Amino acid sequence: MIKVVIIGSGNVAQHLIKAFIKSNKIDVIQAYARKRESLKHLIDVERITDNTYKLLEADLYIIAISDQAIEQFATQIPFQNKLIVHTSGSMPIGVLDNKNRKGVFYPLQTFSKNKEVDFSIIPICLEAQNTDDYQLLEEVAQSVTTKVYPIDSQQRKAIHVTAVFVNNFVNHLYQIGVDICEENKVPFEILHPLIAETADKIMTLLPDEAQTGPAKRGDTQIINEHLHFLSKDNQKEIYKILTKSIIDHGKKL
Amino acid sequence: MIKVVIIGSGNVAQHLIKAFIKSNKIDVIQAYARKRESLKHLIDVERITDNTYKLLEADLYIIAISDQAIEQFATQIPFQNKLIVHTSGSMPIGVLDNKNRKGVFYPLQTFSKNKEVDFSIIPICLEAQNTDDYQLLEEVAQSVTTKVYPIDSQQRKAIHVTAVFVNNFVNHLYQIGVDICEENKVPFEILHPLIAETADKIMTLLPDEAQTGPAKRGDTQIINEHLHFLSKDNQKEIYKILTKSIIDHGKKL
Repeated sequence: MIKVVIIGSGNVAQHLIKAFIKSNKIDVIQAYARKRESLKHLIDVERITDNTYKLLEADLYIIAISDQAIEQFATQIPFQNKLIVHTSGSMPIGVLDNKNRKGVFYPLQTFSKNKEVDFSIIPICLEAQNTDDYQLLEEVAQSVTTKVYPIDSQQRKAIHVTAVFVNNFVNHLYQIGVDICEENKVPFEILHPLIAETADKIMTLLPDEAQTGPAKRGDTQIINEHLHFLSKDNQKEIYKILTKSIIDHGKKL
Repeated sequence: MIKVVIIGSGNVAQHLIKAFIKSNKIDVIQAYARKRESLKHLIDVERITDNTYKLLEADLYIIAISDQAIEQFATQIPFQNKLIVHTSGSMPIGVLDNKNRKGVFYPLQTFSKNKEVDFSIIPICLEAQNTDDYQLLEEVAQSVTTKVYPIDSQQRKAIHVTAVFVNNFVNHLYQIGVDICEENKVPFEILHPLIAETADKIMTLLPDEAQTGPAKRGDTQIINEHLHFLSKDNQKEIYKILTKSIIDHGKKL
């Protein structure tokens, strides 16, 4: 079994621990959490430490803590020449300390405490500094998912920015939809099938092929009616700018 | 059987004809298309007309043509006191001609020629001017879907505007994602599970609960890095305005 230590107790750390425990290739020999109670529902409390000096020797250390804390934590690992990876979409591999071998193990998904995810369909983006380390990371990743990609730090940054558009910003557009519906006494659930279909379409069609609506048609009458209908300035502004971007994109085709 | 005439040959008309033909309560006695060939793969060519004077007497006429053409077409129906409805999300009931009874039969979905949809989960929003007409529309709608809602013209406008945000604009954010990935040689399919999960979350969580990312965390360092990373002005502008809107929305909670 590959011996792994998980650093962190947040959503990513918890989902990783759960996924590795189900795998028969990975032994999570230890987890580090500043508050040991935060992980005891997942792993034997004897295996949880809050002290970096008590970290055990392992084949792989996965640092799944907030971006800002990674650099500092990496210097506190009391070993040399071990394989240490972080799980951040936005940090380069170089943020890790030079005394150890470096890598990135970035599961591309949005993790919420209140919602289970199927880890087996989550893409994991890997980066390492040599072939042996990459192969170890690949083996660990393949123990929990079928989708493993070699991704360098520049590509990972592109993925992270893209994720902001297709996840964070998309969710905010849902938020605006909820706000408009509440204001007009419409149950938002009416929009659920449209939301599902919009996401489903993009799995098989190019966004160009899937694009519909007044901006795509250049229907300025409807666009003006919608702008008049919207009551909030931020809604109007977002409507204008996305409409313009759709129109301009259409011109480039 | 309820006798229905479908006016139009576009995506909505075609999907309605297909759904009604499967139902055992609805008889599509006739379809009107300017080009009769456009419907002959769906319905017996004898039942297709391109001449408004040849329209047959029916219980219900469903006008599924472009918004701008509805008003003009309604005046050409050679009957009085018949129930005539349109299928538009953006037109009020009053756009229909006074000589007939008016209604709206608005299926809320994005229809593409190249993708089948499961009509049975599509919400249909109904409006009529009296109870009898509403009940007839309800019977017709229930013959193809389980999701039928009474929605007045003001609510329908809210739904249509919301649909622009959660469908058209969301799809454009996918477009931007594809553009960023292409530019950085990343296969966009890596983002597919994230897109699916983002849409799936909103079925059970409020958008506030589902919101994650640098804007939600107020992480100005990452926000600035992303703005620096983006190469296109429209991408930067959309990033800025949606980030600001997420931050401002968070302050209101």
